Amino acid sequence: MSAIENKLTALGLSLQQPKPPVGNYLGSKIIGELLFASGRVSDCTGEVGTDISLEQGKEAARNTLLLILAIIKQDIGDLDQIVGVIKVTGFIRSSTNFTKQPKVLDGASDLLVALFGEAGRHARTATGVAQLPFGASVQLDIIFQVKNES
Amino acid sequence: MSAIENKLTALGLSLQQPKPPVGNYLGSKIIGELLFASGRVSDCTGEVGTDISLEQGKEAARNTLLLILAIIKQDIGDLDQIVGVIKVTGFIRSSTNFTKQPKVLDGASDLLVALFGEAGRHARTATGVAQLPFGASVQLDIIFQVKNES
Amino acid sequence: MSAIENKLTALGLSLQQPKPPVGNYLGSKIIGELLFASGRVSDCTGEVGTDISLEQGKEAARNTLLLILAIIKQDIGDLDQIVGVIKVTGFIRSSTNFTKQPKVLDGASDLLVALFGEAGRHARTATGVAQLPFGASVQLDIIFQVKNES
Repeated sequence: MSAIENKLTALGLSLQQPKPPVGNYLGSKIIGELLFASGRVSDCTGEVGTDISLEQGKEAARNTLLLILAIIKQDIGDLDQIVGVIKVTGFIRSSTNFTKQPKVLDGASDLLVALFGEAGRHARTATGVAQLPFGASVQLDIIFQVKNES
Repeated sequence: MSAIENKLTALGLSLQQPKPPVGNYLGSKIIGELLFASGRVSDCTGEVGTDISLEQGKEAARNTLLLILAIIKQDIGDLDQIVGVIKVTGFIRSSTNFTKQPKVLDGASDLLVALFGEAGRHARTATGVAQLPFGASVQLDIIFQVKNES
Repeated sequence: MSAIENKLTALGLSLQQPKPPVGNYLGSKIIGELLFASGRVSDCTGEVGTDISLEQGKEAARNTLLLILAIIKQDIGDLDQIVGVIKVTGFIRSSTNFTKQPKVLDGASDLLVALFGEAGRHARTATGVAQLPFGASVQLDIIFQVKNES
Protein backbone atom coordinates (compact mmCIF):
# COMPACT_ATOMS: atom_id res chain seq x y z
CA MET A 1 0.00 0.00 0.00
CA SER A 2 1.21 3.49 -0.79
CA ALA A 3 2.48 5.89 1.86
CA ILE A 4 -0.46 8.21 1.16
CA GLU A 5 -2.98 5.42 1.63
CA ASN A 6 -1.28 4.46 4.87
CA LYS A 7 -1.77 8.04 6.06
CA LEU A 8 -5.42 7.90 5.05
CA THR A 9 -5.86 4.71 7.05
CA ALA A 10 -4.15 6.28 10.06
CA LEU A 11 -6.66 9.16 9.80
CA GLY A 12 -9.54 6.68 9.75
CA LEU A 13 -10.28 7.47 6.09
CA SER A 14 -10.41 5.26 3.04
CA LEU A 15 -10.89 5.42 -0.71
CA GLN A 16 -14.07 4.13 -2.28
CA GLN A 17 -14.32 2.47 -5.66
CA PRO A 18 -14.54 5.45 -8.05
CA LYS A 19 -17.42 6.00 -10.41
CA PRO A 20 -16.12 6.23 -13.97
CA PRO A 21 -16.67 9.51 -15.87
CA VAL A 22 -20.00 9.48 -17.69
CA GLY A 23 -19.16 11.05 -21.05
CA ASN A 24 -16.28 11.71 -23.38
CA TYR A 25 -13.85 12.87 -20.73
CA LEU A 26 -11.25 11.53 -18.33
CA GLY A 27 -10.95 11.44 -14.58
CA SER A 28 -7.59 13.17 -14.94
CA LYS A 29 -5.08 14.18 -17.58
CA ILE A 30 -1.32 14.58 -17.27
CA ILE A 31 0.96 16.90 -19.18
CA GLY A 32 4.58 17.04 -18.04
CA GLU A 33 4.53 17.35 -14.26
CA LEU A 34 0.96 18.65 -14.12
CA LEU A 35 -2.00 16.38 -13.42
CA PHE A 36 -5.36 18.06 -14.01
CA ALA A 37 -8.12 16.27 -12.12
CA SER A 38 -11.63 16.58 -13.49
CA GLY A 39 -13.96 18.57 -11.31
CA ARG A 40 -15.78 16.33 -8.87
CA VAL A 41 -18.92 17.11 -6.93
CA SER A 42 -19.73 16.02 -3.41
CA ASP A 43 -22.20 13.23 -2.73
CA CYS A 44 -23.63 15.68 -0.21
CA THR A 45 -26.32 17.84 -1.81
CA GLY A 46 -27.93 21.14 -0.90
CA GLU A 47 -27.01 24.79 -0.63
CA VAL A 48 -24.47 25.71 2.03
CA GLY A 49 -25.91 28.22 4.47
CA THR A 50 -29.50 27.06 4.10
CA ASP A 51 -29.82 23.32 3.33
CA ILE A 52 -26.58 22.34 5.02
CA SER A 53 -24.31 23.98 7.60
CA LEU A 54 -20.78 25.31 7.24
CA GLU A 55 -19.45 22.26 9.09
CA GLN A 56 -21.35 19.90 6.79
CA GLY A 57 -19.97 21.80 3.80
CA LYS A 58 -16.45 21.45 5.13
CA GLU A 59 -16.93 17.72 5.55
CA ALA A 60 -18.34 17.57 2.01
CA ALA A 61 -15.16 19.23 0.72
CA ARG A 62 -13.00 16.69 2.53
CA ASN A 63 -15.05 13.79 1.20
CA THR A 64 -14.94 15.16 -2.34
CA LEU A 65 -11.15 15.16 -2.14
CA LEU A 66 -11.31 11.46 -1.28
CA LEU A 67 -13.41 10.88 -4.41
CA ILE A 68 -10.79 12.65 -6.51
CA LEU A 69 -7.92 10.71 -4.95
CA ALA A 70 -9.74 7.45 -5.68
CA ILE A 71 -10.05 8.40 -9.35
CA ILE A 72 -6.41 9.42 -9.60
CA LYS A 73 -5.33 6.16 -7.99
CA GLN A 74 -7.31 4.32 -10.64
CA ASP A 75 -5.81 6.49 -13.39
CA ILE A 76 -2.13 6.46 -12.37
CA GLY A 77 -1.99 3.32 -10.23
CA ASP A 78 -0.24 4.75 -7.18
CA LEU A 79 -0.95 7.93 -5.23
CA ASP A 80 2.74 8.15 -4.31
CA GLN A 81 3.27 9.42 -7.88
CA ILE A 82 1.81 12.68 -6.54
CA VAL A 83 4.64 14.86 -5.33
CA GLY A 84 2.76 18.07 -4.61
CA VAL A 85 -0.45 20.04 -4.88
CA ILE A 86 -0.43 23.13 -7.11
CA LYS A 87 -3.91 24.65 -7.23
CA VAL A 88 -7.30 23.93 -5.71
CA THR A 89 -10.45 25.62 -6.98
CA GLY A 90 -13.58 25.13 -4.91
CA PHE A 91 -17.00 25.96 -6.27
CA ILE A 92 -19.30 26.18 -3.25
CA ARG A 93 -23.05 26.14 -3.82
CA SER A 94 -23.99 29.16 -1.77
CA SER A 95 -27.14 30.78 -0.54
CA THR A 96 -27.38 34.49 -1.35
CA ASN A 97 -26.09 35.42 2.07
CA PHE A 98 -23.41 32.78 2.53
CA THR A 99 -19.92 34.29 2.28
CA LYS A 100 -17.66 31.79 4.09
CA GLN A 101 -16.66 29.75 1.02
CA PRO A 102 -12.99 29.65 2.18
CA LYS A 103 -13.98 27.96 5.45
CA VAL A 104 -15.76 25.25 3.47
CA LEU A 105 -12.74 24.70 1.25
CA ASP A 106 -10.55 24.30 4.34
CA GLY A 107 -12.02 20.81 4.60
CA ALA A 108 -10.05 19.84 1.49
CA SER A 109 -6.96 22.01 2.11
CA ASP A 110 -6.44 20.64 5.60
CA LEU A 111 -6.55 17.04 4.39
CA LEU A 112 -4.19 17.78 1.49
CA VAL A 113 -1.59 19.16 3.91
CA ALA A 114 -2.16 16.25 6.33
CA LEU A 115 -1.48 13.82 3.50
CA PHE A 116 1.25 15.51 1.48
CA GLY A 117 2.93 17.70 4.09
CA GLU A 118 4.59 20.95 3.04
CA ALA A 119 4.38 19.91 -0.64
CA GLY A 120 0.62 19.66 -0.16
CA ARG A 121 0.33 23.39 0.48
CA HIS A 122 -1.23 25.02 -2.57
CA ALA A 123 -2.62 28.10 -4.22
CA ARG A 124 -6.39 28.08 -4.13
CA THR A 125 -9.61 29.88 -5.01
CA ALA A 126 -12.93 29.48 -3.20
CA THR A 127 -15.90 30.88 -5.03
CA GLY A 128 -19.68 30.77 -4.72
CA VAL A 129 -21.99 29.41 -7.39
CA ALA A 130 -25.74 29.23 -7.75
CA GLN A 131 -26.01 25.61 -8.77
CA LEU A 132 -23.85 22.51 -9.20
CA PRO A 133 -24.29 19.20 -11.05
CA PHE A 134 -26.79 16.91 -9.29
CA GLY A 135 -27.50 19.66 -6.76
CA ALA A 136 -24.20 18.98 -4.98
CA SER A 137 -22.90 21.27 -2.25
CA VAL A 138 -19.25 21.38 -3.24
CA GLN A 139 -17.20 20.91 -6.40
CA LEU A 140 -13.40 20.60 -6.38
CA ASP A 141 -11.05 21.16 -9.29
CA ILE A 142 -7.42 20.35 -8.48
CA ILE A 143 -4.06 20.52 -10.25
CA PHE A 144 -1.48 18.16 -8.74
CA GLN A 145 2.23 17.83 -9.39
CA VAL A 146 3.30 14.32 -10.37
CA LYS A 147 6.61 12.64 -11.06
CA ASN A 148 7.65 13.38 -14.60
CA GLU A 149 8.38 10.18 -16.47
CA SER A 150 9.75 11.83 -19.59
CA MET B 1 -6.60 22.74 -45.37
CA SER B 2 -5.68 21.20 -42.05
CA ALA B 3 -6.68 17.68 -41.06
CA ILE B 4 -8.85 19.10 -38.28
CA GLU B 5 -10.69 21.40 -40.67
CA ASN B 6 -11.24 18.49 -43.02
CA LYS B 7 -12.86 16.63 -40.15
CA LEU B 8 -15.04 19.63 -39.38
CA THR B 9 -16.15 19.75 -43.00
CA ALA B 10 -16.91 16.04 -42.96
CA LEU B 11 -19.11 16.65 -39.91
CA GLY B 12 -20.95 19.43 -41.75
CA LEU B 13 -19.38 22.10 -39.51
CA SER B 14 -17.26 25.11 -40.33
CA LEU B 15 -15.34 27.89 -38.64
CA GLN B 16 -16.64 31.43 -38.79
CA GLN B 17 -14.51 34.54 -38.95
CA PRO B 18 -13.65 35.17 -35.29
CA LYS B 19 -14.50 38.37 -33.48
CA PRO B 20 -11.33 39.91 -32.06
CA PRO B 21 -11.07 40.28 -28.27
CA VAL B 22 -12.49 43.62 -27.13
CA GLY B 23 -10.00 44.80 -24.52
CA ASN B 24 -6.44 44.34 -23.40
CA TYR B 25 -6.36 40.60 -23.71
CA LEU B 26 -5.65 37.85 -26.21
CA GLY B 27 -7.72 35.12 -27.79
CA SER B 28 -5.15 32.63 -26.53
CA LYS B 29 -1.73 32.49 -24.93
CA ILE B 30 0.91 29.80 -25.20
CA ILE B 31 3.52 28.79 -22.66
CA GLY B 32 5.59 25.72 -23.48
CA GLU B 33 3.18 23.04 -24.65
CA LEU B 34 0.14 24.66 -23.03
CA LEU B 35 -2.25 26.88 -24.95
CA PHE B 36 -4.72 28.72 -22.74
CA ALA B 37 -7.77 29.83 -24.72
CA SER B 38 -9.68 32.82 -23.43
CA GLY B 39 -13.11 32.02 -22.14
CA ARG B 40 -15.69 32.34 -24.88
CA VAL B 41 -19.44 32.65 -24.50
CA SER B 42 -22.08 31.15 -26.76
CA ASP B 43 -24.00 33.30 -29.23
CA CYS B 44 -27.02 31.53 -27.78
CA THR B 45 -28.42 33.45 -24.81
CA GLY B 46 -30.72 32.55 -21.93
CA GLU B 47 -30.72 30.41 -18.84
CA VAL B 48 -30.52 26.66 -19.38
CA GLY B 49 -33.51 24.91 -17.84
CA THR B 50 -35.89 27.85 -18.28
CA ASP B 51 -35.12 30.00 -21.33
CA ILE B 52 -33.50 27.20 -23.33
CA SER B 53 -33.58 23.40 -23.15
CA LEU B 54 -30.82 20.97 -22.28
CA GLU B 55 -30.50 20.04 -25.96
CA GLN B 56 -30.19 23.69 -26.95
CA GLY B 57 -27.56 24.16 -24.26
CA LYS B 58 -25.61 21.19 -25.56
CA GLU B 59 -25.70 22.65 -29.07
CA ALA B 60 -24.57 26.00 -27.63
CA ALA B 61 -21.57 24.26 -26.06
CA ARG B 62 -20.63 22.66 -29.37
CA ASN B 63 -20.98 25.96 -31.22
CA THR B 64 -18.89 27.79 -28.61
CA LEU B 65 -16.10 25.30 -29.19
CA LEU B 66 -16.21 26.23 -32.89
CA LEU B 67 -15.81 29.91 -31.91
CA ILE B 68 -12.75 29.04 -29.82
CA LEU B 69 -11.21 26.93 -32.60
CA ALA B 70 -11.69 29.82 -35.05
CA ILE B 71 -9.79 32.16 -32.71
CA ILE B 72 -6.99 29.67 -32.19
CA LYS B 73 -6.67 29.15 -35.93
CA GLN B 74 -6.28 32.90 -36.32
CA ASP B 75 -3.74 33.02 -33.48
CA ILE B 76 -1.54 30.06 -34.41
CA GLY B 77 -2.29 29.71 -38.10
CA ASP B 78 -3.02 25.99 -38.24
CA LEU B 79 -5.24 23.88 -36.01
CA ASP B 80 -3.00 20.88 -36.65
CA GLN B 81 -0.58 22.50 -34.19
CA ILE B 82 -3.00 21.25 -31.53
CA VAL B 83 -1.88 17.82 -30.37
CA GLY B 84 -4.25 17.27 -27.48
CA VAL B 85 -6.86 18.68 -25.14
CA ILE B 86 -5.93 19.00 -21.48
CA LYS B 87 -8.77 20.65 -19.56
CA VAL B 88 -12.21 22.00 -20.35
CA THR B 89 -14.11 24.15 -17.88
CA GLY B 90 -17.73 24.88 -18.71
CA PHE B 91 -19.67 27.61 -16.95
CA ILE B 92 -23.33 26.87 -17.61
CA ARG B 93 -25.87 29.61 -16.92
CA SER B 94 -28.31 27.63 -14.83
CA SER B 95 -31.73 28.13 -13.39
CA THR B 96 -31.97 27.39 -9.68
CA ASN B 97 -33.24 23.90 -10.33
CA PHE B 98 -31.05 22.94 -13.29
CA THR B 99 -28.42 20.36 -12.30
CA LYS B 100 -27.43 18.68 -15.58
CA GLN B 101 -24.45 20.94 -16.39
CA PRO B 102 -22.33 17.91 -17.41
CA LYS B 103 -24.86 16.94 -20.09
CA VAL B 104 -24.61 20.44 -21.55
CA LEU B 105 -20.82 20.30 -21.61
CA ASP B 106 -20.98 16.98 -23.46
CA GLY B 107 -21.76 19.06 -26.55
CA ALA B 108 -18.17 20.34 -26.49
CA SER B 109 -16.50 17.18 -25.19
CA ASP B 110 -18.05 14.98 -27.86
CA LEU B 111 -16.85 17.27 -30.66
CA LEU B 112 -13.35 17.50 -29.18
CA VAL B 113 -13.05 13.71 -29.21
CA ALA B 114 -14.54 13.52 -32.72
CA LEU B 115 -11.90 15.97 -33.93
CA PHE B 116 -8.80 15.01 -31.96
CA GLY B 117 -9.44 11.33 -31.21
CA GLU B 118 -7.98 9.78 -28.09
CA ALA B 119 -5.72 12.84 -27.57
CA GLY B 120 -8.88 14.94 -27.46
CA ARG B 121 -10.06 13.24 -24.28
CA HIS B 122 -9.63 15.66 -21.41
CA ALA B 123 -10.14 16.48 -17.77
CA ARG B 124 -13.10 18.77 -17.30
CA THR B 125 -15.30 20.66 -14.88
CA ALA B 126 -18.93 21.64 -15.49
CA THR B 127 -20.30 24.19 -13.09
CA GLY B 128 -23.41 26.36 -12.79
CA VAL B 129 -23.34 30.14 -12.69
CA ALA B 130 -25.99 32.78 -12.21
CA GLN B 131 -25.03 35.04 -15.07
CA LEU B 132 -22.64 35.20 -18.03
CA PRO B 133 -21.35 37.99 -20.29
CA PHE B 134 -24.04 39.22 -22.71
CA GLY B 135 -26.55 36.88 -21.08
CA ALA B 136 -25.00 33.87 -22.82
CA SER B 137 -26.03 30.32 -21.98
CA VAL B 138 -22.59 28.68 -22.00
CA GLN B 139 -18.99 29.76 -21.49
CA LEU B 140 -16.03 27.51 -22.28
CA ASP B 141 -12.50 27.83 -20.97
CA ILE B 142 -10.06 25.34 -22.52
CA ILE B 143 -6.41 24.40 -22.13
CA PHE B 144 -5.00 22.68 -25.21
CA GLN B 145 -1.68 20.94 -25.78
CA VAL B 146 0.27 22.31 -28.74
CA LYS B 147 3.50 21.38 -30.46
CA ASN B 148 6.38 22.86 -28.56
CA GLU B 149 8.53 24.96 -30.84
CA SER B 150 11.27 25.59 -28.29
CA MET C 1 13.01 49.17 -6.11
CA SER C 2 11.89 46.91 -8.94
CA ALA C 3 11.01 48.21 -12.41
CA ILE C 4 7.40 47.10 -11.90
CA GLU C 5 7.11 48.97 -8.61
CA ASN C 6 8.57 52.06 -10.27
CA LYS C 7 5.81 51.83 -12.87
CA LEU C 8 3.21 51.49 -10.12
CA THR C 9 4.57 54.60 -8.44
CA ALA C 10 4.52 56.49 -11.74
CA LEU C 11 0.83 55.51 -12.07
CA GLY C 12 0.14 56.84 -8.56
CA LEU C 13 -0.41 53.32 -7.23
CA SER C 14 1.27 51.41 -4.45
CA LEU C 15 1.30 47.98 -2.84
CA GLN C 16 -0.14 47.54 0.62
CA GLN C 17 1.15 45.13 3.24
CA PRO C 18 -0.52 41.85 2.27
CA LYS C 19 -2.78 39.91 4.59
CA PRO C 20 -1.42 36.38 5.00
CA PRO C 21 -3.62 33.48 3.83
CA VAL C 22 -5.92 32.30 6.64
CA GLY C 23 -5.77 28.52 6.34
CA ASN C 24 -3.64 25.70 5.01
CA TYR C 25 -2.84 27.32 1.71
CA LEU C 26 -0.34 29.65 0.07
CA GLY C 27 -0.56 33.07 -1.53
CA SER C 28 1.02 31.57 -4.62
CA LYS C 29 2.69 28.41 -5.84
CA ILE C 30 5.30 27.98 -8.55
CA ILE C 31 5.90 25.02 -10.81
CA GLY C 32 8.44 25.48 -13.57
CA GLU C 33 7.70 28.81 -15.24
CA LEU C 34 4.11 28.95 -13.97
CA LEU C 35 3.13 30.90 -10.87
CA PHE C 36 -0.42 30.20 -9.72
CA ALA C 37 -1.71 33.03 -7.52
CA SER C 38 -4.42 32.17 -5.03
CA GLY C 39 -7.76 33.74 -5.80
CA ARG C 40 -8.11 37.09 -4.08
CA VAL C 41 -11.29 39.02 -3.43
CA SER C 42 -11.71 42.78 -3.57
CA ASP C 43 -12.00 44.83 -0.40
CA CYS C 44 -14.95 46.40 -2.16
CA THR C 45 -18.16 44.49 -1.37
CA GLY C 46 -21.58 44.28 -2.99
CA GLU C 47 -23.16 43.01 -6.14
CA VAL C 48 -22.13 44.70 -9.39
CA GLY C 49 -25.13 46.17 -11.15
CA THR C 50 -27.14 46.81 -8.00
CA ASP C 51 -24.96 47.59 -4.95
CA ILE C 52 -22.07 49.03 -6.93
CA SER C 53 -21.68 50.42 -10.46
CA LEU C 54 -19.73 49.06 -13.40
CA GLU C 55 -17.06 51.73 -12.85
CA GLN C 56 -16.76 50.80 -9.17
CA GLY C 57 -16.47 47.15 -10.17
CA LYS C 58 -13.71 47.98 -12.62
CA GLU C 59 -11.83 49.87 -9.91
CA ALA C 60 -12.33 46.90 -7.58
CA ALA C 61 -10.74 44.62 -10.20
CA ARG C 62 -7.73 46.93 -10.49
CA ASN C 63 -7.34 47.13 -6.71
CA THR C 64 -7.62 43.36 -6.35
CA LEU C 65 -4.72 43.00 -8.77
CA LEU C 66 -2.67 45.22 -6.46
CA LEU C 67 -3.51 42.90 -3.55
CA ILE C 68 -2.29 39.92 -5.58
CA LEU C 69 0.91 41.66 -6.63
CA ALA C 70 1.62 42.52 -2.98
CA ILE C 71 1.30 38.86 -2.01
CA ILE C 72 3.51 37.71 -4.87
CA LYS C 73 6.14 40.28 -3.93
CA GLN C 74 6.13 38.86 -0.42
CA ASP C 75 6.31 35.30 -1.76
CA ILE C 76 9.04 35.69 -4.40
CA GLY C 77 10.81 38.83 -3.19
CA ASP C 78 10.85 40.81 -6.41
CA LEU C 79 8.07 41.47 -8.93
CA ASP C 80 10.65 41.68 -11.70
CA GLN C 81 10.77 37.87 -11.53
CA ILE C 82 7.45 38.04 -13.35
CA VAL C 83 8.10 37.86 -17.07
CA GLY C 84 4.56 37.57 -18.38
CA VAL C 85 0.89 37.04 -17.65
CA ILE C 86 -0.70 33.82 -18.90
CA LYS C 87 -4.31 33.64 -17.75
CA VAL C 88 -6.69 35.80 -15.75
CA THR C 89 -10.00 34.46 -14.48
CA GLY C 90 -12.38 37.00 -13.00
CA PHE C 91 -15.37 35.94 -10.94
CA ILE C 92 -17.70 38.95 -10.86
CA ARG C 93 -20.49 38.98 -8.28
CA SER C 94 -23.37 39.84 -10.56
CA SER C 95 -26.98 40.80 -10.19
CA THR C 96 -29.36 38.68 -12.26
CA ASN C 97 -29.41 41.27 -15.03
CA PHE C 98 -25.75 42.29 -15.06
CA THR C 99 -23.95 40.97 -18.16
CA LYS C 100 -20.91 43.24 -18.55
CA GLN C 101 -18.44 41.08 -16.60
CA PRO C 102 -15.72 41.62 -19.24
CA LYS C 103 -15.88 45.41 -18.73
CA VAL C 104 -15.30 44.91 -15.00
CA LEU C 105 -12.32 42.65 -15.62
CA ASP C 106 -10.80 45.30 -17.92
CA GLY C 107 -9.79 47.10 -14.70
CA ALA C 108 -7.26 44.34 -14.06
CA SER C 109 -6.31 43.61 -17.68
CA ASP C 110 -5.52 47.25 -18.44
CA LEU C 111 -3.21 47.54 -15.43
CA LEU C 112 -1.46 44.27 -16.27
CA VAL C 113 -0.64 45.57 -19.75
CA ALA C 114 0.40 48.97 -18.36
CA LEU C 115 2.83 47.22 -16.01
CA PHE C 116 4.15 44.32 -18.08
CA GLY C 117 3.74 45.62 -21.64
CA GLU C 118 3.16 43.16 -24.46
CA ALA C 119 4.13 40.25 -22.19
CA GLY C 120 1.32 41.33 -19.89
CA ARG C 121 -1.31 40.53 -22.49
CA HIS C 122 -3.10 37.35 -21.46
CA ALA C 123 -5.86 34.88 -22.06
CA ARG C 124 -8.77 35.51 -19.75
CA THR C 125 -12.26 34.48 -18.67
CA ALA C 126 -14.82 36.78 -17.06
CA THR C 127 -17.74 35.01 -15.47
CA GLY C 128 -20.64 35.91 -13.18
CA VAL C 129 -21.22 34.33 -9.79
CA ALA C 130 -23.97 34.62 -7.22
CA GLN C 131 -21.79 35.13 -4.17
CA LEU C 132 -18.14 35.61 -3.21
CA PRO C 133 -16.16 35.27 0.04
CA PHE C 134 -16.91 38.12 2.45
CA GLY C 135 -19.53 39.47 0.05
CA ALA C 136 -16.80 40.86 -2.22
CA SER C 137 -17.58 42.28 -5.65
CA VAL C 138 -14.68 40.80 -7.60
CA GLN C 139 -12.37 37.80 -7.31
CA LEU C 140 -9.26 37.37 -9.45
CA ASP C 141 -7.38 34.16 -10.15
CA ILE C 142 -4.18 34.66 -12.16
CA ILE C 143 -1.44 32.50 -13.66
CA PHE C 144 1.79 34.40 -14.23
CA GLN C 145 4.96 33.40 -16.04
CA VAL C 146 8.09 33.69 -13.92
CA LYS C 147 11.78 33.23 -14.54
CA ASN C 148 12.62 29.57 -14.33
CA GLU C 149 15.41 29.01 -11.86
CA SER C 150 15.88 25.34 -12.67
